[in-house]
Amino acid sequence: MAVGQGDFPEMLEVAGIQLGTACAGIKQTVRDDILIIQMADHSTCAAVFTRNAFCAAPVQVAKANLAHAPRWLLINSGNANAGTGTQGMQDALASCAALAAVAGCTANQVLPFSTGVIGQPLPVEKINAALPSAVNNLSPGNWDKAAKAIMTTDTFPKGVSKVISIEGKPVAINGIAKGAGMIQPNMATMLGFIATDAKIKQHLLQECLAQGVEQSFNRITVDGDTSTNDAGVLMATGCSAAPEITRNSESYMIFADAIMTVCKKLAEAIIRDGEGATKLMRIVVEQSLNDEEAVRVGKTIAHSPLVKTAFFAGDPNWGRILAAVGRSGVENMDIDKVQIFLDDVCIVKNGGRADTYTEEAGQQVMNQEEITVTVKLGRGEACQEILSCDFSYDYVRINAEYRT
Amino acid sequence: MAVGQGDFPEMLEVAGIQLGTACAGIKQTVRDDILIIQMADHSTCAAVFTRNAFCAAPVQVAKANLAHAPRWLLINSGNANAGTGTQGMQDALASCAALAAVAGCTANQVLPFSTGVIGQPLPVEKINAALPSAVNNLSPGNWDKAAKAIMTTDTFPKGVSKVISIEGKPVAINGIAKGAGMIQPNMATMLGFIATDAKIKQHLLQECLAQGVEQSFNRITVDGDTSTNDAGVLMATGCSAAPEITRNSESYMIFADAIMTVCKKLAEAIIRDGEGATKLMRIVVEQSLNDEEAVRVGKTIAHSPLVKTAFFAGDPNWGRILAAVGRSGVENMDIDKVQIFLDDVCIVKNGGRADTYTEEAGQQVMNQEEITVTVKLGRGEACQEILSCDFSYDYVRINAEYRT
Repeated sequence: MAVGQGDFPEMLEVAGIQLGTACAGIKQTVRDDILIIQMADHSTCAAVFTRNAFCAAPVQVAKANLAHAPRWLLINSGNANAGTGTQGMQDALASCAALAAVAGCTANQVLPFSTGVIGQPLPVEKINAALPSAVNNLSPGNWDKAAKAIMTTDTFPKGVSKVISIEGKPVAINGIAKGAGMIQPNMATMLGFIATDAKIKQHLLQECLAQGVEQSFNRITVDGDTSTNDAGVLMATGCSAAPEITRNSESYMIFADAIMTVCKKLAEAIIRDGEGATKLMRIVVEQSLNDEEAVRVGKTIAHSPLVKTAFFAGDPNWGRILAAVGRSGVENMDIDKVQIFLDDVCIVKNGGRADTYTEEAGQQVMNQEEITVTVKLGRGEACQEILSCDFSYDYVRINAEYRT
Repeated sequence: MAVGQGDFPEMLEVAGIQLGTACAGIKQTVRDDILIIQMADHSTCAAVFTRNAFCAAPVQVAKANLAHAPRWLLINSGNANAGTGTQGMQDALASCAALAAVAGCTANQVLPFSTGVIGQPLPVEKINAALPSAVNNLSPGNWDKAAKAIMTTDTFPKGVSKVISIEGKPVAINGIAKGAGMIQPNMATMLGFIATDAKIKQHLLQECLAQGVEQSFNRITVDGDTSTNDAGVLMATGCSAAPEITRNSESYMIFADAIMTVCKKLAEAIIRDGEGATKLMRIVVEQSLNDEEAVRVGKTIAHSPLVKTAFFAGDPNWGRILAAVGRSGVENMDIDKVQIFLDDVCIVKNGGRADTYTEEAGQQVMNQEEITVTVKLGRGEACQEILSCDFSYDYVRINAEYRT
């Protein structure tokens, strides 16, 4: 299932970026499971990584190699190379070396990423054998194939493409992402790759990525589980005709805003494809003392299995939302000031069910595929939005059968 | 479904305690839904309550009345009287007044408790009409009826009965509890009522209850949702032949230990009856820096929908346990020191799958109904245990259909 996702968009080319895919046979099904991305010389590259203490071997290698002017990304799906100890680290390094040999770069110019089952040895020989084919396939037009090659339990490929104007010159920004389960990103999504032909220094690029991720991938949750492999990469080739983007310029504002938009669209696509999802829950927490508090309240609602199953059933069981707000750990909450809405329908006011509320009005909202829950805490001015989805039979089925 | 729960035990009488049940017709099914408990004069009474900010009207009334030497408890199932605003408070007070009129006490000597659907007006007239019948039924032998009358989505009544020796004299302790969903108690279970004929001052009784609850009801979770109505009560009638239990005495140690045992058994029964549960997960976190850290790691595993669905499937997907440990927020965790076991089978060592691990050994443990996950953090001496259960199709069904 997926909630209201349209077709994969037409992806423009990004000057200086080439993508190649191949089938290494990591999974039993015959499909591309290897993606390599080449960046033009002089590109800058920023990245954010999972905060899970058990971060996967490729995450550790990518973190280290980020300092060595990366030129290539090497991504495999079907195997996370996580929980694989010393062998996993050797395998990640070996796959980087194998790509370097075929591509003619140094091994530390490759950032490796893996996604899939945790705890299985990486089939590094299969991957290495498929690399020449991926290199032969390199093309700037392979964005759709790339989005498909990184999928695991995803039911559709996720991509965004946009063009902005930097001092009158067009700059392209493309993003692809994957993820449907083990989704409560912390610093990054499961995997997200964004490329632009803008010219921008690495530290500014990193700043744009961090800001974008914080308000997008770090505001979504399917199941509250932060992956061992989360990573987000932003590549800037500098191959467009636009002048360099510098700090405090108008161009920087436009660029940073566009990166955030791309991040938000990719993050929303992940939630629309949440494992077993039948409904999109947009949880807006307003009038909170600060952002942290707003995020806490929003995530408490978003993680509540009782709220999520009620949404699956289309049941306006607002008592469960109220209970989640109440247990979210906000100190000295004045419950008489709290208001809760389903779309525009006020359900809670003055510590209880709103006088104006009717089950019919609540039911009408709950019948929709996309529902906004707004919580007004009556404590301050901060506001944050969390995206989540419901909990269905299919969620249990998908995760009970994952390894069978 | 329920996991390995035996028959309801034979409950001894507790001198000075009488229980009466009645059918008020709060739910559509015809069953007792009202329980009243009378304590002998000079009883002491301790209680702990939910920390949910939206605590229900009866919780607020019970908290206030605890100071007025309570003589009666009035419990209804089928309606939580939570999220009901001013009217809910009036209804809770009215039901106390109604019982006081029939029973011949003052209204503030009644502690009211409600459990069931949130946000519906309490059918206070139905309750009041049933009270004379409940008073007429009062008997010291009604523990089984009492345990059934407080059930909501529970599939079996939960009770514990034991006798201890205080300076050579027998002292009885009985406990009943209800709860299957919205279970991550904070200060108390959904509802738990324990009575003893020991003689003990109120402040010591409160201390025993708080200690018992902390290591039992506060260490279980079905779904991570803390109820608006959680409450636990410990009544001591002083009607046994045993001398008063005083601080720092051997009797106090024996008594406090027995209360903890009763709390733990009731808490475990709640998990065995967790909504849709097919497996009991006992999560033991050892070698942590402190108790708080151990509880955090344990609850992160216990709340992970990915871990819970893998347990439902009987899949030794240890990567999900490892990922949960990794995202639990323990600072500076040295993953090379972490060891994880399924029962006695070591699954994780030195940051990855243990060399000695085989899928067959893991599968054998996962086929059991009761499984212990032990996490050794290699950081210190603290140890805590969390009880939880799996996530099944039935969990989704029960909670999707709850109000239909």
